[in-house]
Amino acid sequence: MTLKNLSLEKRIEHFSKLLAEHRMGRFRTDFLAQHAFDQVQVFKEFSTHERKHVYDYISPEEMAGLFDSDPMEESLLKVYFSEMNAQYAASTLSFMKPDNAVHILNEIDDTHQVSAYLTLMPSKVARELSTLLNYTDHTAGALMTTDFVSVPVEMTVGETIQYIKKEAIEAETIYYVYVVNEANQIQGVISLRDLIVHSDEDPVSQWMRRQVISVNVNEEEEEVARTVQDYNLLAIPVTGYDNELLGIITIDDIVDVLEEVATANYSGLAAVDVDEDHATPLQASKGRLPWLITLLFLGMGTATLIGKYETLIEEATVLSAFITLITGTAGNAGTQSLAVAVRKLTNKDEDDKLFSSFGFELMTGVLTGLIVGVTIALIAGVWKQNIILGLIIGTAMMCAIIVANLAGALVPKLMDKIGFDPAVASGPFISTLSDLTSVLIYFSIASFFLDKL
Amino acid sequence: MTLKNLSLEKRIEHFSKLLAEHRMGRFRTDFLAQHAFDQVQVFKEFSTHERKHVYDYISPEEMAGLFDSDPMEESLLKVYFSEMNAQYAASTLSFMKPDNAVHILNEIDDTHQVSAYLTLMPSKVARELSTLLNYTDHTAGALMTTDFVSVPVEMTVGETIQYIKKEAIEAETIYYVYVVNEANQIQGVISLRDLIVHSDEDPVSQWMRRQVISVNVNEEEEEVARTVQDYNLLAIPVTGYDNELLGIITIDDIVDVLEEVATANYSGLAAVDVDEDHATPLQASKGRLPWLITLLFLGMGTATLIGKYETLIEEATVLSAFITLITGTAGNAGTQSLAVAVRKLTNKDEDDKLFSSFGFELMTGVLTGLIVGVTIALIAGVWKQNIILGLIIGTAMMCAIIVANLAGALVPKLMDKIGFDPAVASGPFISTLSDLTSVLIYFSIASFFLDKL
Repeated sequence: MTLKNLSLEKRIEHFSKLLAEHRMGRFRTDFLAQHAFDQVQVFKEFSTHERKHVYDYISPEEMAGLFDSDPMEESLLKVYFSEMNAQYAASTLSFMKPDNAVHILNEIDDTHQVSAYLTLMPSKVARELSTLLNYTDHTAGALMTTDFVSVPVEMTVGETIQYIKKEAIEAETIYYVYVVNEANQIQGVISLRDLIVHSDEDPVSQWMRRQVISVNVNEEEEEVARTVQDYNLLAIPVTGYDNELLGIITIDDIVDVLEEVATANYSGLAAVDVDEDHATPLQASKGRLPWLITLLFLGMGTATLIGKYETLIEEATVLSAFITLITGTAGNAGTQSLAVAVRKLTNKDEDDKLFSSFGFELMTGVLTGLIVGVTIALIAGVWKQNIILGLIIGTAMMCAIIVANLAGALVPKLMDKIGFDPAVASGPFISTLSDLTSVLIYFSIASFFLDKL
Repeated sequence: MTLKNLSLEKRIEHFSKLLAEHRMGRFRTDFLAQHAFDQVQVFKEFSTHERKHVYDYISPEEMAGLFDSDPMEESLLKVYFSEMNAQYAASTLSFMKPDNAVHILNEIDDTHQVSAYLTLMPSKVARELSTLLNYTDHTAGALMTTDFVSVPVEMTVGETIQYIKKEAIEAETIYYVYVVNEANQIQGVISLRDLIVHSDEDPVSQWMRRQVISVNVNEEEEEVARTVQDYNLLAIPVTGYDNELLGIITIDDIVDVLEEVATANYSGLAAVDVDEDHATPLQASKGRLPWLITLLFLGMGTATLIGKYETLIEEATVLSAFITLITGTAGNAGTQSLAVAVRKLTNKDEDDKLFSSFGFELMTGVLTGLIVGVTIALIAGVWKQNIILGLIIGTAMMCAIIVANLAGALVPKLMDKIGFDPAVASGPFISTLSDLTSVLIYFSIASFFLDKL
């Protein structure tokens, strides 16, 4: 295979040429020889016209392998499926891993379209997908696959291996075999590794692990991912309310969830969707403006407040030089404590009480505020040859940092409490909010000392 | 096992009691009945005194299982190993998975101590670890394990399964078997799943996949993680410069790398180590102050600049009300474009040229700047009943946003170019930097229009 060492651009060129020349045989050979992930990279770059050819050349089963290999953006998936004829789309979905197929069906807003697809599928698959479609998005149920291997507790190692040989083609992972009782409740788990090394005559119950880590079907996906990561699992079983085994979630889906969560938190902290990379400047601006404008109005509060102190500034313009220094530094401190708080919340390290870390953040604020405050008091005092000014700036800086620290720690907790995603409390939000408190603190202290300036 | 349903606190209490009463037998039974991950959670909460007992009760092999299950903080690992006697420590390390043992040895700064441990180990293990210790930290070499299964290309499926049965106890994963030629170069890979379903008489070469995704031993760990994630692998082989197979990296280590990278980026964006959770307020302050003080000095530049415009402010104090609004909004825009840029850099989506996204960010800056600028021009103009003031504020806002946008996009690229981690260019850094440029822009424009105010 000479294609293997070609760059993506060269490969796209190669395949576009084959499509243009209607060379189906050669296209199939070369295209399918690639790893599914590489197929996706090429496929994404085709034009609509070229993709229509691809749907003629590549079977639904082959197309399913392509879609299974990569969690594509929802917007792309919608486009691709709308381009296919309904029979081809339904067939592709039915060949996909059930969890991935459900993910796509969940994205299609048109319920008639979804029903049409399900009608066109083999009824067994349609029933399976219908069940999965009932689970809430972003829960264990929506993430799980029903293609797994479970055996009755009476089976022997040899019988289990024979059973796997028959089932292995369908099942998403055969590396864990779940051992169940008559009520389909998990009694234990045995790895393929253990099956291989033990005698065929032994009952599986002799070698299975009885302590099985599982998750409830309604568990949030973040929590599931954390559990799989903590226990170093390749797959985790999902159980219903009678503890019956409903499905499994495999490590590849867990990796995607962890990545999504990390991206969402990172995006949240910066008040921007960092995966906007496919966008034009217009699309990027559309994504960034809502936060900028919202914070602009919050910032107007600060501007109004400063406006109220205009006479104070007229009397002592020297004060204006330090406004941004105080608001900026307090904003930085607030961003730091915000990030720590959001992190603790997403890791569930923190207990739920709103004020549990209050003392900690207060002390941290006092310590950092004191040191930064003394530093700037000395600098400002010496620079402007004015001890009182130094004292005002230093005290204001300290108080502003303490308040920003507390705001950074409490706001995400408060949002979590009232049901919002704490990651939405972004760094820009906290710094804009703390601008307001910092200015209030600064000018209140300055007014108090004004006659001494 | 009644312990299973107890909370962590109750379990710690239970085990502390057993340790205090010197009930070794019961302690061993109950402690080892827990999942390794849960053992770690309890172990971490023991006092130094209690842990010394644990080292007497739990064998090095059992302790190795505990350390293998969880990537603990380096500081904790150092403490634990310094508490053990050298023979116990060496023995524990030798029973651990090689990649994990090397990770710990890499953390021990004292090279004499490391040599002492290696001397006390079985020579085969010591040789293995010495080789791994030669690889640079955070590369594929440092992450890989040498416990994997490879077979010569001539073997049959049946022979391979027999071989696995013997090797499975040692190998970290047996789910992929690598097929090599005489020079130990990878010819293909066959999954345990494929071995199970095919006839014993078939040569492995008949069923192996010939396209094997592998990484070079010097590849950066982030790049390795990205590859494993893209291709949905459970393990990836690591090759040397003659393409010889040196080791494999398994998915559990990849998940840890992805988590570390995500945490580092998140921490970077907020200019704070978000995993400071074990710290006291004093330790937290120590971690946060360096950035705060550094940025304070950068902020002093802005204060000095404003100071130079004091006469301007005296003449038109109304200008002072809008300082924080302009610096704040520009800082927010800069943080957004920074986060997008860092994300693109870590994903290597971006080509390497410093100015490749210059046009994109310039356009995005112009668009967002224009809209925010017009908005604030109208608000300020109407509020202060002064069209010229509105124009000044609006124009300054637009220019400040454009500059901050470009800074946010270029600074991380520049840092990457000169060899720094781009994630260090934090949101607080960009907003403090853009305070300076925003103030300069604002007062320059205001000076120009002053006579018309």
